[in-house]
Amino acid sequence: MNKGRLIVFSAPSGCGKGTMLKEICRDDNYYFSVSATTREPRNGEVDGVNYRFITHDEFMSLIDSGNMLEYAEYCSNLYGTPLDKVKEELAKGKNVILEIEVVGAMKVRELRPDALFIFAVPPSLKELERRLRDRGTETEEVIQARIAKAKEEIPYASKYDYVIVNDVLEKAVEDFKAVINAESFKAENSAELLEEVIKNA
Amino acid sequence: MNKGRLIVFSAPSGCGKGTMLKEICRDDNYYFSVSATTREPRNGEVDGVNYRFITHDEFMSLIDSGNMLEYAEYCSNLYGTPLDKVKEELAKGKNVILEIEVVGAMKVRELRPDALFIFAVPPSLKELERRLRDRGTETEEVIQARIAKAKEEIPYASKYDYVIVNDVLEKAVEDFKAVINAESFKAENSAELLEEVIKNA
Repeated sequence: MNKGRLIVFSAPSGCGKGTMLKEICRDDNYYFSVSATTREPRNGEVDGVNYRFITHDEFMSLIDSGNMLEYAEYCSNLYGTPLDKVKEELAKGKNVILEIEVVGAMKVRELRPDALFIFAVPPSLKELERRLRDRGTETEEVIQARIAKAKEEIPYASKYDYVIVNDVLEKAVEDFKAVINAESFKAENSAELLEEVIKNA
Repeated sequence: MNKGRLIVFSAPSGCGKGTMLKEICRDDNYYFSVSATTREPRNGEVDGVNYRFITHDEFMSLIDSGNMLEYAEYCSNLYGTPLDKVKEELAKGKNVILEIEVVGAMKVRELRPDALFIFAVPPSLKELERRLRDRGTETEEVIQARIAKAKEEIPYASKYDYVIVNDVLEKAVEDFKAVINAESFKAENSAELLEEVIKNA
């Protein structure tokens, strides 16, 4: 009865999006779709985890077969959202999550009106700054650039379907799942269910 | 931040609506609004639990002050949904549940577009029949009349916002709450939140 949903998930860098996704996808009803790129893997990057590292020809053939939802070129490399695995997992009834930044997400909005758009925000920019600083891996310049970027991205949240605050991880994950569950109870999708209930007399 | 929602809840008789409401309202964030009537309490009925038993004058003064959401006369007695307590509890941030049958609910739909409409269905009419029979208190005639009524009411569910199946009580209660939570994350209500996040730099 529960059909899998296509979910587009965005959040500013430093908001804890990665940790949220990891936690959400421990649940077998969720599948995280990894982006594809033609660039070389960096040190420590794992194929199928950070990206699907594919050749230019493979990338092109995904576009040609209509299996690339959206893509962009950056520093002579192609980055995109392949749909082959997405379709496979949706068919199994899984909720498939795409992690896409705001501009790409807005493109997908037009292409896939069936998708559900969720945006996660930090409790405040102050807290975002604290988290970025706590990582201890970013220079002051990078931290300031990310905060400036977050300030630009956050207003886009109002164009999504749902906005979740990532204050306490467990709560944010619970809220994310509540949203997906609630969507499956929408009356506008209940025709088949109601027919079943009445038929079964 | 979480504002209380006005919730209109309907379900066919025998669907376990009463048990669901009892379970939901154990949570302090929920308040169940009791209907008012001018009829005399029957044996075992408790004022403020089954109904608010009020005089004709009190009923009329609630209508005159705009504090009766909807009402109807039945066998020379008035039945209605008083708003005085509802407003009080909403102001406290509670989610207030009104239990109204389908025709009354559709009237409220026009009067209160801010309200959230939830309909609970049994897994099947066969299961509804089994539950009515298991009570052991209803005559065969009453059971058949209730099933016929349920068959009439269930198609109205598509005019509500959400449809929840009451198969396993705990799951139905969880689903009900997931819907209310998810509503509070809707992006269309996020303007204030987003402003707060960005302001707090």
